[in-house]
Amino acid sequence: MDAAIAYAREQRPRFLDDLHDFLRIPSVSTAPDRAADVARAGQWVAERLKALGFATRIEATPRHPIVRADWLKAAGAPTILCYGHFDVQPPEPLGLWRHPPFEPTVENGALYARGASDDKGQLLTHVAAVESILRTTGTLPVNVKFLLEGEEEIGSPSLVDYLPRYRRALAADAALVSDGIIFAPGIPAITTGLRGLLYTEIEVTGARTDLHSGAFGGAAPNAVAAAAQIVASLKDRRGRIKIPGFYTSVRGPDDAERAAWSRLPFHEAAYLRELGIEVAPGEEGYSILERLWARPTLDVHGIDGGFVGEGMKTVIPARAVAKVSMRLVPDQRPNRVLKQLGRFVQRSAPPGVRVDVRELAGTPPVLVAADTPYVRAAARALEDVFGRAPVYMRLGGSIPIVWDFTSKLKIPTVLMGFGLPDDNFHAPNEKFALANFYQGIDAIIRFFYHVRG
Amino acid sequence: MDAAIAYAREQRPRFLDDLHDFLRIPSVSTAPDRAADVARAGQWVAERLKALGFATRIEATPRHPIVRADWLKAAGAPTILCYGHFDVQPPEPLGLWRHPPFEPTVENGALYARGASDDKGQLLTHVAAVESILRTTGTLPVNVKFLLEGEEEIGSPSLVDYLPRYRRALAADAALVSDGIIFAPGIPAITTGLRGLLYTEIEVTGARTDLHSGAFGGAAPNAVAAAAQIVASLKDRRGRIKIPGFYTSVRGPDDAERAAWSRLPFHEAAYLRELGIEVAPGEEGYSILERLWARPTLDVHGIDGGFVGEGMKTVIPARAVAKVSMRLVPDQRPNRVLKQLGRFVQRSAPPGVRVDVRELAGTPPVLVAADTPYVRAAARALEDVFGRAPVYMRLGGSIPIVWDFTSKLKIPTVLMGFGLPDDNFHAPNEKFALANFYQGIDAIIRFFYHVRG
Repeated sequence: MDAAIAYAREQRPRFLDDLHDFLRIPSVSTAPDRAADVARAGQWVAERLKALGFATRIEATPRHPIVRADWLKAAGAPTILCYGHFDVQPPEPLGLWRHPPFEPTVENGALYARGASDDKGQLLTHVAAVESILRTTGTLPVNVKFLLEGEEEIGSPSLVDYLPRYRRALAADAALVSDGIIFAPGIPAITTGLRGLLYTEIEVTGARTDLHSGAFGGAAPNAVAAAAQIVASLKDRRGRIKIPGFYTSVRGPDDAERAAWSRLPFHEAAYLRELGIEVAPGEEGYSILERLWARPTLDVHGIDGGFVGEGMKTVIPARAVAKVSMRLVPDQRPNRVLKQLGRFVQRSAPPGVRVDVRELAGTPPVLVAADTPYVRAAARALEDVFGRAPVYMRLGGSIPIVWDFTSKLKIPTVLMGFGLPDDNFHAPNEKFALANFYQGIDAIIRFFYHVRG
Repeated sequence: MDAAIAYAREQRPRFLDDLHDFLRIPSVSTAPDRAADVARAGQWVAERLKALGFATRIEATPRHPIVRADWLKAAGAPTILCYGHFDVQPPEPLGLWRHPPFEPTVENGALYARGASDDKGQLLTHVAAVESILRTTGTLPVNVKFLLEGEEEIGSPSLVDYLPRYRRALAADAALVSDGIIFAPGIPAITTGLRGLLYTEIEVTGARTDLHSGAFGGAAPNAVAAAAQIVASLKDRRGRIKIPGFYTSVRGPDDAERAAWSRLPFHEAAYLRELGIEVAPGEEGYSILERLWARPTLDVHGIDGGFVGEGMKTVIPARAVAKVSMRLVPDQRPNRVLKQLGRFVQRSAPPGVRVDVRELAGTPPVLVAADTPYVRAAARALEDVFGRAPVYMRLGGSIPIVWDFTSKLKIPTVLMGFGLPDDNFHAPNEKFALANFYQGIDAIIRFFYHVRG
């Protein structure tokens, strides 16, 4: 193990170069014209694993390929399913990036690029870890199956289909996912829960065409105004979501978990400063960590329609599309919430417009057990590297496939991430601290040895 | 006069060719990168007037040029100030046009292009009329001063500044404006009132950057949601604008005008069919014509911010800009309403965001007298051409400079338009019926003779 760790330390400049190469591929899975780039990103990582002796295959899907790579020569040792994703979020709005999103740039000890922490940098910690062990010992202490996808940012539709059909090929003792964060600089974390996601488009249609607001203003339906009304109707002034039945199946954390969270070194003032705001809006009666981890939320991501260019255009928009998503918590289910939303939106719509609600993605929330040998191995690895035991937290975000690991493969998952809360996941100027990249590689090497026991 | 009318009839194909040329120039005044095209459109019309013997000058302004062209050889006769504009609205959304907006196409007896009726086609009726008279008689029955601008669609800021400084050069007995509509096919109209306009941008700022809705959803301000709430707060469910003081200075039409409107052949079912809707939303307690002509309104034109591309992006937008305008009626004033709006919006804003309200354009509403000799001459011209007396109506739209003709030049204005209510002003598939183009030329020729008396 020590040789592998020394090798990883020595190879840091090359691992960083590799990450630069990986990040230069604009593998935006939601953009149809980027499909070739997503495939190229999958190929890029597949080639690296193949060169290390992994049995590698690229599986075509209706959208973006799945990459599988197996090293199964550790007879009698456990098998770890290493999951990661090589697709990234769209970089827009481009104007807010300090450096072009697909020209990775190191600044103040961090690498800035779309995908730096979510998830290419974290995925590469796994690849660099197996390389470090194989190149120094010629073998691995455990069996490793990589399962890498290019659709995480669009809800993993192909992988969700794929998983049950390849249950045997994917059989493993535990899954390892590094697509999250540590609690704060220097404070490692094990994640024990992920919120689910229901992402929808609410389309509003008014008149047969856009109209002149002078000629028709006062007696014509305005689709953007209707969309704004619908969006505004979804929450009350105290941050409660007004969709009937929405909270019915919400199950909060137990007292022990809540108590543990209240002892975490979370500083509201620092949180507000980081976001550049004076008050954190949100649901009354819950702490910020509870709101982020254990309460369902609703956000509008944008409203398309009408005129938003420079200057003015006096148009009554005939059509608007609001992108609205909800983060779900145990035991909410996306399909049930979709129905509740659809009914409520039809009632909120003002006269003169038609409204349609479409689901773009649905992922159930998931909790993972903290009392497994795999989580204990991860905790030990993190303590080795960071010099302190990890905290147990949840994540507000979603990793769709974890639900399927739990419910379909029926294996425990270890959620050990290396990003930071201010890494600007999904936002301009996404970054990954170099220290976290290197600590991540170190921790993954140790994890493989500790899992072997 | 008859010779001029015969000439105009004979020259119809060429006038139509000219209009095609004029419409091919994409003179979008609100788009900074179209400034050269706006100037080119001004030059295009200036050259035509110069060739007819007009003393022509192009005046530079901070934005787009003003074109003036005088023919003042009718000693003792009245002077008519012919106003028009050679700029056009943006053509977006491009996908909804059946033909490219700047490739004029004749279909079913109408010419389709951005600017066809608003206002290039109508402006050319004036040019074609003076050409027809000059080419057949060598003189004009009245003095004519053309005053043409390239900023009408952005609120005429330069012309408003220019007018008082050139009061003497622009001295005239009446202004003639053809930038409106007839009441319905075959029913000519004189317009007696225009609504004013206050066009604003409401900018909402939340966190210092866009945030991941998984990581921060539930405890971060959403600028698009706040903009939607603000927009939704501006009107109640019955179509009343909720800004305190907004209706205080509204003066309705008198009983005679209201009675005349109720006799107009307006068919609500046809109106709804044309718009493709089943109910006309709007302020309760007022007829559709009253709502369109004599009631103030408020519309949102678009909300910029966040993600509106294909697919999904789970972002909490840090910034949003809503474009919101109000149509004003006598005796509302844009600057007073701007203050009322600003105060109300600050109160409506949810916690955690900052809000700024900016004025992009402000035009007071205006009424023009119907009992002037100039309006009588116009009515006679319209009756000659259409075989029936015009109706007296108002327009829901705004023509900024008419307020200044009234209040600064202190001359009466004749508002005699030739568009149709379904000409798609400011919308995709703008058109101008060829019949209206030719009837317009005919009516303007007759107007010049009738004004001479």
